[in-house]
Amino acid sequence: MRGNGLVAQSGGPTAVINNSVRGVIQGWLQQKNTGCLYGAMYGIKGILEDRLVDLNAQGKTFINGLRYTPGAVLGSCRYKLQEGDYWKLLRFFQKKDIRYFFYIGGNDSMDTANKVYRLALQERYELYVIGIPKTVDNDLPFTDHCPGYGSAAKFLAITAMETSIDLRSLLMSKGVTIMEVMGRNTGWLAASTMLARRSDDDGPHLIYLPEVPFIREKFLADVEDVYRDLGHVYIVVSEGLVDQEGRYIFAEKSRDPFGHCLLGGLAETLKTMLEKETGIKVRCNIPGTIQRAAAHCASAVDAREAHMVGVEAVRTAAAGASGIMIALVRKQGETYCCVPGSIALDRVANREKKMPRQWINRAGNGIGEEFLQYVRPLIKGDVPIPTCNGLPAFIGLENFQRRSHPVGEPR
Amino acid sequence: MRGNGLVAQSGGPTAVINNSVRGVIQGWLQQKNTGCLYGAMYGIKGILEDRLVDLNAQGKTFINGLRYTPGAVLGSCRYKLQEGDYWKLLRFFQKKDIRYFFYIGGNDSMDTANKVYRLALQERYELYVIGIPKTVDNDLPFTDHCPGYGSAAKFLAITAMETSIDLRSLLMSKGVTIMEVMGRNTGWLAASTMLARRSDDDGPHLIYLPEVPFIREKFLADVEDVYRDLGHVYIVVSEGLVDQEGRYIFAEKSRDPFGHCLLGGLAETLKTMLEKETGIKVRCNIPGTIQRAAAHCASAVDAREAHMVGVEAVRTAAAGASGIMIALVRKQGETYCCVPGSIALDRVANREKKMPRQWINRAGNGIGEEFLQYVRPLIKGDVPIPTCNGLPAFIGLENFQRRSHPVGEPR
Repeated sequence: MRGNGLVAQSGGPTAVINNSVRGVIQGWLQQKNTGCLYGAMYGIKGILEDRLVDLNAQGKTFINGLRYTPGAVLGSCRYKLQEGDYWKLLRFFQKKDIRYFFYIGGNDSMDTANKVYRLALQERYELYVIGIPKTVDNDLPFTDHCPGYGSAAKFLAITAMETSIDLRSLLMSKGVTIMEVMGRNTGWLAASTMLARRSDDDGPHLIYLPEVPFIREKFLADVEDVYRDLGHVYIVVSEGLVDQEGRYIFAEKSRDPFGHCLLGGLAETLKTMLEKETGIKVRCNIPGTIQRAAAHCASAVDAREAHMVGVEAVRTAAAGASGIMIALVRKQGETYCCVPGSIALDRVANREKKMPRQWINRAGNGIGEEFLQYVRPLIKGDVPIPTCNGLPAFIGLENFQRRSHPVGEPR
Repeated sequence: MRGNGLVAQSGGPTAVINNSVRGVIQGWLQQKNTGCLYGAMYGIKGILEDRLVDLNAQGKTFINGLRYTPGAVLGSCRYKLQEGDYWKLLRFFQKKDIRYFFYIGGNDSMDTANKVYRLALQERYELYVIGIPKTVDNDLPFTDHCPGYGSAAKFLAITAMETSIDLRSLLMSKGVTIMEVMGRNTGWLAASTMLARRSDDDGPHLIYLPEVPFIREKFLADVEDVYRDLGHVYIVVSEGLVDQEGRYIFAEKSRDPFGHCLLGGLAETLKTMLEKETGIKVRCNIPGTIQRAAAHCASAVDAREAHMVGVEAVRTAAAGASGIMIALVRKQGETYCCVPGSIALDRVANREKKMPRQWINRAGNGIGEEFLQYVRPLIKGDVPIPTCNGLPAFIGLENFQRRSHPVGEPR
């Protein structure tokens, strides 16, 4: 390896995304090279604004803190690069002699990485671009699953279990709980709450995913059926539910920089509708960013794999690969095992992987055993967090910033 | 002690309420008596409908499961007793020779317990009535704090910490997070999120409690101030915020059986207002019942104290006391220590304890050190939960029901 490396985080953080940064740092240090590994502060915007930190200079406490600290330790952003930005980026790479670009993100980010890769190719600038998968939504194709998903799924499963017990406790007061979960246009996160069911009476009783068009009348009938049976109903809905024409059931008018609708508010919409139509009292649980930041519920398998894809990104780049994303490949066999693989960035960019229809029940309001077999290994094990006064002793962004030095300034 | 005992759970469950049932069972077994300890299924309604279970008959696995299982294991309800119900209750007690009544609940429940106590006195039926405090809202007077509060406070503090790091990660994308928490007419739970702050930049930046009238213009100015400073704002609001006339900022039209307004929907109301007035993008985190059921975040101190008040209730009744609620009395000194005390039911009934105004900052949007000193000991220590496939192995209500036998039916 020759030249310098650069790692950036993109989009919404996860509970384990910092493990991928740790993987890249450790992978980099394992390689025989003398170059510097930079971190871009606040993602791609940090590159455009020349806000880099020297990751070689970070101490052991900091590196170790990446194991259990949620959020994006380097900072992240949602910013769609303009045509001119790509050129700016390339010139910046040339100026800093950056030859390795590691980009941790979802499908939008893989598109960005791909465009950087193509431009470098075109301009004959030797640049190794490796995408590192990350998303709680689990919607990246060509990878068994995405780092970040297992931990969010685990938090939601535990939470669904606890709140379903809470709802059943109040059986004679009768009621409906609606939990709205993330996942954008896919139902992977909503489906994970099925893990909470240990008996038929346990919630969630009804799970609605964007993979199955949402029909108002069917929904009302489903709820009334369960209610008649049990006297209470626990419903999980995916934020991105769509009707038969593919329109979101609820989306705000504003859009993010990538043109995606901003989701959220669905549970309240359904609550109003249900209360009006049935007279049953409805309660909403909307964990929002809690589900993607819940490091206190992180899965050890997830954290390990997030680290593994970081290490592998550097190893693959050092071996001369470029324009690829690291993927997770599940080995067949009794014991769960995922090994790193790779897939061309242009095959992943801007594409979404939906839940297979056959993993959802025929009625479109529940999840089958095949999915449970898929998800069970992903939530296993805990990530120990040092505590201080009963609270997690996460490392702070501000420590990191102070401890590092802006590139080009005297240490 | 002579005759039988009866324990019932009331109102919304907490993460540790079952520890109080465990305390009552163990306290009962420690006493020299031959009577049966019954549990009322689904609270006071279970008594009226003759749905009791024999708690003497429960096995060790079940009793141990009460340490870590959330929800109300006996079932609970929200039901306001009618005049005739009290007579029905008394006749039922007479019929079953129930001489000890342990009622686990909040201020409404203490009123119910008090009325049962008064009626028995009036009718010269020897009955020992003991209230056992329970509420995540922490709003019972004459007790240092309420069992259930510490665990919910801990979950909210951890969650505020994690989601504040998440928000700060996306600094350059700018935004506002509003977390709506429970607490009814008091700000104890909202205040607990202040534990998440380790530096001035950390969220929550603004905390609004029902103890301080909410003024729309001041709120907007507060948010804009922080936003100008930091580029992002983390806001915590208590569900029961009121305006200067004492009217809820947001409450649903329907009411619970005790005539209380149903709260919820506040965060969405503030989001709409903020986005309209400032154009800043707002995200809502509404943990709902997640915060009161989060056994996976339970505090060991809280669980221990919930158990202690259960044991103490039986001890006090055996000593001949009646018409009282067990309270927690904090000892002065460097090391935190709470011992059981007692207070007459009629002094607690239907009364709410608010946060002292001097524990809130002068601007009415933040919390001072005095409160932090009060709350810090309450969240300490973890409650270990056995797991199965990476998920908590809570005991199930259905196991309990099957394992017990309805009173009067052959075993």
